[in-house]
Amino acid sequence: MNKLVIFGVGLIGGSLALALKQSNANVRIVGVGRNPDSLSEALRLNIIDQAEIDVKAALSNADVIVLAAPVAQTQPILTNIKPLITPNMVITDAGSTKCDVLNYANSILGEQFCQFVGGHPIAGAEKSGPSAAMANLYQNKNVILTPANQTNSNAINVVKSMWEQCGAIVSTMPAETHDGIFAAVSHLPHLLAFALVDDLASRPNAEQLFSFAASGFRDFTRIAGSHPEMWRDISFANKAALLNEIQAFQTELETIKQLLQDENSTALEALFLRASQARNQWAKTKQAQISQ
Amino acid sequence: MNKLVIFGVGLIGGSLALALKQSNANVRIVGVGRNPDSLSEALRLNIIDQAEIDVKAALSNADVIVLAAPVAQTQPILTNIKPLITPNMVITDAGSTKCDVLNYANSILGEQFCQFVGGHPIAGAEKSGPSAAMANLYQNKNVILTPANQTNSNAINVVKSMWEQCGAIVSTMPAETHDGIFAAVSHLPHLLAFALVDDLASRPNAEQLFSFAASGFRDFTRIAGSHPEMWRDISFANKAALLNEIQAFQTELETIKQLLQDENSTALEALFLRASQARNQWAKTKQAQISQ
Repeated sequence: MNKLVIFGVGLIGGSLALALKQSNANVRIVGVGRNPDSLSEALRLNIIDQAEIDVKAALSNADVIVLAAPVAQTQPILTNIKPLITPNMVITDAGSTKCDVLNYANSILGEQFCQFVGGHPIAGAEKSGPSAAMANLYQNKNVILTPANQTNSNAINVVKSMWEQCGAIVSTMPAETHDGIFAAVSHLPHLLAFALVDDLASRPNAEQLFSFAASGFRDFTRIAGSHPEMWRDISFANKAALLNEIQAFQTELETIKQLLQDENSTALEALFLRASQARNQWAKTKQAQISQ
Repeated sequence: MNKLVIFGVGLIGGSLALALKQSNANVRIVGVGRNPDSLSEALRLNIIDQAEIDVKAALSNADVIVLAAPVAQTQPILTNIKPLITPNMVITDAGSTKCDVLNYANSILGEQFCQFVGGHPIAGAEKSGPSAAMANLYQNKNVILTPANQTNSNAINVVKSMWEQCGAIVSTMPAETHDGIFAAVSHLPHLLAFALVDDLASRPNAEQLFSFAASGFRDFTRIAGSHPEMWRDISFANKAALLNEIQAFQTELETIKQLLQDENSTALEALFLRASQARNQWAKTKQAQISQ
């Protein structure tokens, strides 16, 4: 890979650029974005080698194009670059949902869809923007690729090798599997955290409630501080899988409510025990990987 | 206060002892417990001055008696000490629920109930046992006292001043108010975290789901690693308030599900925004206090 074009030079795109520069000093990285301030900052921080507003200039002789802008821009960017894509180019993205992205890519790119590989790096941080970018953000983190049946195996290999150069652990699975997993382990928890805080914040005694909330509440609700617009987009992008997860959770919560109402203390303790064992076992296995 | 008797010399009771010793070197602290190993350890670590299995010897000339053993022992301990309580003694506890404790205390202590002050220090840590005790555990933490109408004002003052000596911020409120607040900001979040982990752990693809869970999941589910027996006891002790909270949460979740189904993106984003603003505002105000 000689030339990489990244749309969006914030935390996700910027960290990819830094990691690749660290492992391969020869790659030329061009940043494209709507925000001139972000682009200048990325340039100043040596995250990118060139900042471009002109997409044609950016894509000329590009090997890989990475979409790391907010997901709402995926369709306009794909439409914009479509006439500039040559047969040797590989296109990938970094969005949190994959079925919707593959559908857009398929309908917009047409026969060039075989050059597109859906991707999702499972990494993030509290901060955003170019100044938050870190060369080690993807070290030992999972990156999931969701190629379609039509996808070129060469394109898959290029994207896989790009993420492996960043120190990531790359898995491949169908987009539907990906979206089901993340509805369960990420999107639903976000929704539940938003729900709890909104429920409490709307009460007349909200101030009193919040004044006695402590460390358990802090950790449980941390993800309720996430970006509302981004999570609105994720929720709708993964609507079908998320509705399934809400339904499953409602059933589980109704079961717990019933055990409490029936004073079935044996079954309630057994449920808490299963959960605490699974959670503590998970933490033991994963803590090192997600310590950031 | 010259002599303090603590039932249960683990994290909660042990930290109280250490904090009081630090602020008042003259107080004599007697530890009482069922577990001889814990008592010897507390003695060895200079948390207590005397270890007693004999309750009569322990209570002789005591000024204050603190119940800091697991809540399931509250009734047996009260029954046990009842004949040994003299009119000058003040009794308090450190349990997470207060209506149930006041009911037990009222029915067991009878006319001595006026010497009992329900208490709940809002502090904890991952670890337990005497070795986890810390002199600064209660520094800037909330402690709630829930006196009844009959409670002696002198008894309230003694307990209030004891916790203030530990650096705590003491509030007073009716037991019902306390239990309502903690059902909302602590007990419900625990139940939701247990519910999510149990739901996922029981699926055929649990291993795959957990392998892609990351930092959001880690924080959201941290409290699902809590002690199952303790949370069974808390859930039933605060059953009525907790059932109300489950109901309110179910309504909120159903609302979110409906917004998603109806593709009402404006209302869903507005809800996420309310939650994220409330959560981030809360974090700003409280982070310093609950940084441990």
